[in-house]
Amino acid sequence: SDLGRLTVQCADRPGIVAAVSQFLTDHGANIVESDQATTDPVDGQFFLRMTFHRPGLQAHLDDMTKNFTKALVEKFEVTEWSLRDASTPKRVAIMVSKYDHCLLDLLWRARRGELPVDIGLVISNHADLASEVRTFGVPFVHMPVTRDTKPEAEARQLQLLQGNFDLVVLARYMQILSADFLASVGCPVINIHHSFLPPFAGAGPYERAKERGVKLIGATAHYATEDLDEGPIIEQDVVRVRHSDNIAALKRRGADVERLVLSRAVLWHCEDRVLRQGNSTVVFS
Amino acid sequence: SDLGRLTVQCADRPGIVAAVSQFLTDHGANIVESDQATTDPVDGQFFLRMTFHRPGLQAHLDDMTKNFTKALVEKFEVTEWSLRDASTPKRVAIMVSKYDHCLLDLLWRARRGELPVDIGLVISNHADLASEVRTFGVPFVHMPVTRDTKPEAEARQLQLLQGNFDLVVLARYMQILSADFLASVGCPVINIHHSFLPPFAGAGPYERAKERGVKLIGATAHYATEDLDEGPIIEQDVVRVRHSDNIAALKRRGADVERLVLSRAVLWHCEDRVLRQGNSTVVFS
Amino acid sequence: SDLGRLTVQCADRPGIVAAVSQFLTDHGANIVESDQATTDPVDGQFFLRMTFHRPGLQAHLDDMTKNFTKALVEKFEVTEWSLRDASTPKRVAIMVSKYDHCLLDLLWRARRGELPVDIGLVISNHADLASEVRTFGVPFVHMPVTRDTKPEAEARQLQLLQGNFDLVVLARYMQILSADFLASVGCPVINIHHSFLPPFAGAGPYERAKERGVKLIGATAHYATEDLDEGPIIEQDVVRVRHSDNIAALKRRGADVERLVLSRAVLWHCEDRVLRQGNSTVVFS
Amino acid sequence: SDLGRLTVQCADRPGIVAAVSQFLTDHGANIVESDQATTDPVDGQFFLRMTFHRPGLQAHLDDMTKNFTKALVEKFEVTEWSLRDASTPKRVAIMVSKYDHCLLDLLWRARRGELPVDIGLVISNHADLASEVRTFGVPFVHMPVTRDTKPEAEARQLQLLQGNFDLVVLARYMQILSADFLASVGCPVINIHHSFLPPFAGAGPYERAKERGVKLIGATAHYATEDLDEGPIIEQDVVRVRHSDNIAALKRRGADVERLVLSRAVLWHCEDRVLRQGNSTVVFS
Repeated sequence: SDLGRLTVQCADRPGIVAAVSQFLTDHGANIVESDQATTDPVDGQFFLRMTFHRPGLQAHLDDMTKNFTKALVEKFEVTEWSLRDASTPKRVAIMVSKYDHCLLDLLWRARRGELPVDIGLVISNHADLASEVRTFGVPFVHMPVTRDTKPEAEARQLQLLQGNFDLVVLARYMQILSADFLASVGCPVINIHHSFLPPFAGAGPYERAKERGVKLIGATAHYATEDLDEGPIIEQDVVRVRHSDNIAALKRRGADVERLVLSRAVLWHCEDRVLRQGNSTVVFS
Repeated sequence: SDLGRLTVQCADRPGIVAAVSQFLTDHGANIVESDQATTDPVDGQFFLRMTFHRPGLQAHLDDMTKNFTKALVEKFEVTEWSLRDASTPKRVAIMVSKYDHCLLDLLWRARRGELPVDIGLVISNHADLASEVRTFGVPFVHMPVTRDTKPEAEARQLQLLQGNFDLVVLARYMQILSADFLASVGCPVINIHHSFLPPFAGAGPYERAKERGVKLIGATAHYATEDLDEGPIIEQDVVRVRHSDNIAALKRRGADVERLVLSRAVLWHCEDRVLRQGNSTVVFS
Repeated sequence: SDLGRLTVQCADRPGIVAAVSQFLTDHGANIVESDQATTDPVDGQFFLRMTFHRPGLQAHLDDMTKNFTKALVEKFEVTEWSLRDASTPKRVAIMVSKYDHCLLDLLWRARRGELPVDIGLVISNHADLASEVRTFGVPFVHMPVTRDTKPEAEARQLQLLQGNFDLVVLARYMQILSADFLASVGCPVINIHHSFLPPFAGAGPYERAKERGVKLIGATAHYATEDLDEGPIIEQDVVRVRHSDNIAALKRRGADVERLVLSRAVLWHCEDRVLRQGNSTVVFS
Repeated sequence: SDLGRLTVQCADRPGIVAAVSQFLTDHGANIVESDQATTDPVDGQFFLRMTFHRPGLQAHLDDMTKNFTKALVEKFEVTEWSLRDASTPKRVAIMVSKYDHCLLDLLWRARRGELPVDIGLVISNHADLASEVRTFGVPFVHMPVTRDTKPEAEARQLQLLQGNFDLVVLARYMQILSADFLASVGCPVINIHHSFLPPFAGAGPYERAKERGVKLIGATAHYATEDLDEGPIIEQDVVRVRHSDNIAALKRRGADVERLVLSRAVLWHCEDRVLRQGNSTVVFS
């Protein structure tokens, strides 16, 4: 505790690191971890993540925030920044359909203290996982979605989510969220999907991967954007498959890599390690 | 030595393994390694690879081949099979352009005795790598190719290759081979190409991978077919990249995974571990 | 269903594969998958695993077993063999202490149908995981163990285990089982332990790994034998760590690789893919 | 070009990052990449690596060095630091015996421009690799070593090395270097050795790994210290092996991982990414 975290993004120019470091020093903070990247030596984009130790942090956070705005945001034309108590867990809601592997992995890790999150809600368009979720002491809300009821369902989902959560995780939620939903939800949304080399658009990717004889299958965690499966990538990984794997075996191996990739993406996001830039990310992992 | 290798492919039906095993036993051979796969419990495709020990193999190979044809090929409607002395290296020709990483890796592994191959020729459309190749005692033939001279160049390449080699390896050969060439060369052709999740068609894949912010880049070794980059996959692998990797770093990491993937594919092919079925492969690795 | 599985181990000699294959053919079975290894071309040890399809298998299994004994076991001096219905799940008991990651992963995979097991009992020397286990519908028995009560506790454990299970899994069971227990339990016992390069004997391995600055940590699943952590290895894997990982992070990464490695070892064992030879294993994975 | 690099190590205290950043800003430099770690929030050890862009760097480097000493080294009791032109390659000497895989990999990568090194000398206690090395335009010196001539040989080696190189790489050099040699050579020495889980001390590690049935073999690159194979670890990796791998196959797979691990360690060292602390390292990779 007493650990704070600061992230900063802006167009690069000389003196930012010095100014930010001096700011923290002036406010009684000792920098304990720092990562910085610039996309180009000249005229690049600047990304910074610092973890600092400040005795009695809670009492000073408001002042630091105000002063940071005054002293630095304008001067360096900072486009994105955050300053927070690193020990405050992020409030997370999960949306899921029927597959339980990603959902359970997140719930387990949260219970075990591996993820700095407070999972406050699970929304599903199916009732199947209700008792499983409630075992963890987490509320489960069943919201069926059909083509006709989708706008109404999204409106009800937004009622539950807006203002209440710092992150929404789509843990194999098999409904496409509308652009309106994503624009209104008020926090980042992370999605997981399987990925293949070569990729197989459309239905039945595992069936087609088997048919094509791929030797690796994978998963990608990314921020959800209007363009389905096209948002900024946070993490990817693959697993080796064998010719003797039938489609069930491919799905089993795929599930293992999906839940690992999603849990890493959620961890890194919640530790403020992921900075977005356009359609890609800088990950200080 | 005295190790033989048998591969068999056909529609599955009961009794094949027994018949093949009995055949080997009757011919004085002891099976030392055996791998078999069937695509379905009923009405599947059958794939078999056996390595056997037969004292004085060389003297018996012709007889075994004749007898196998008579005793088994017709009876089980065998569609593909091979029976060979496992200690006879495959005769390999390499085609390359300017990048040396895949070429050198193969030449060096062959010299070390890691690959059961006899590399007899390197053909390049550039002269750059001539002295490097000749250092290994391997002939290097420079055959420039332009749009206009391509048919003629391919004709000259075929003159050198046809009947002389068991395998052609495209070790970053940056020319597209015509369907005629592939149909005429008379032996399998293995190609290596980089692959990405998501994939980037067209020029500058590393540039676009950087732009998109992928976290993994990979390589795929496959048999070359008329459809560019669409032939049966033999091996794939990936390597993790970081946001701080510039395009040169991506290419460096990509080169590492390309040479590993290609050398594995060549090794497995030359050890008769790769059986083709339609557009996919069974790999007994 | 109607899939059977046969494994055979003995000193190698010509004709075994033929004889076994003919035996299956004669009994109406079609071999759908086959793996065979021999440690040496001459005078090696022979290992075979075959999966076969036999319509109406259940009705024929007793006869096949009797005939196999008569026809083959004596003739080839078979030292180890098994013949079983591949669709019959293995009966598994799990022993655990306080860490839940390996236990939960096995319970969850079993429930999903990923593991061909029937988990019938969890025994723990701590009460912590009782409700978690019972949520899966699996009996949980709390058996505290102290230095003084250990012989008595092991006797009670054996009462529950002997004759009732095909496999005992130590899913982070932090008590050393006596040689007597292992000799009496009547089925294989699989253990998971963390492993490091270099290894750190004694207490606090994660603390010492951090101090030493290792870049990888790992896990090993092995059959439990009298010599602690020295039994035949079934599976191993590692995960990359970073200098910024504190001891909690090392343990978290270690837990991920432990559960993956243990679940693979249990899967392969239950699919009869693991054949023991002395202190090592042949794994047909 | 015009890229400089600064590394700093000292006991942590508030204000270092600010002071260093300000120093660079004051000297006309723009920080383009920065990594910092502290071992503990309070009273930890501080590690910093910064890459900066300074137009006309060469002309200013001496002044910056002088000023850094005056302004910061004393004030913060800096124990280790370096300030250099990132585009100046490190001068590297390689010591090798008979195995060529690590040596050639380094020579290839250097020639290809993948490593920021200038390999100026290869010393070997065997003559085998002379012509191979000279092909690269690198001097090769043959210095046989016997038990009796070792002190004399080391003295001659030191004559060649002292003052002339920034790094010595032991690329499978099968002689133990004396503590005197390591103390006198005047630059870091990086070694590569194979590593196993469990480890096998003494001769014939691959033979014993085969006997033990390990599923992974690995390699470790570390700074050479007086205690053989006990120096600070820079990089480790493993490769999966199979029961069908004989000892030659294990060595082949081992060679692949050795050369990858060593080349990564050399790259990271030469990019100033590796900071030593006692017997471990911080690697900003």
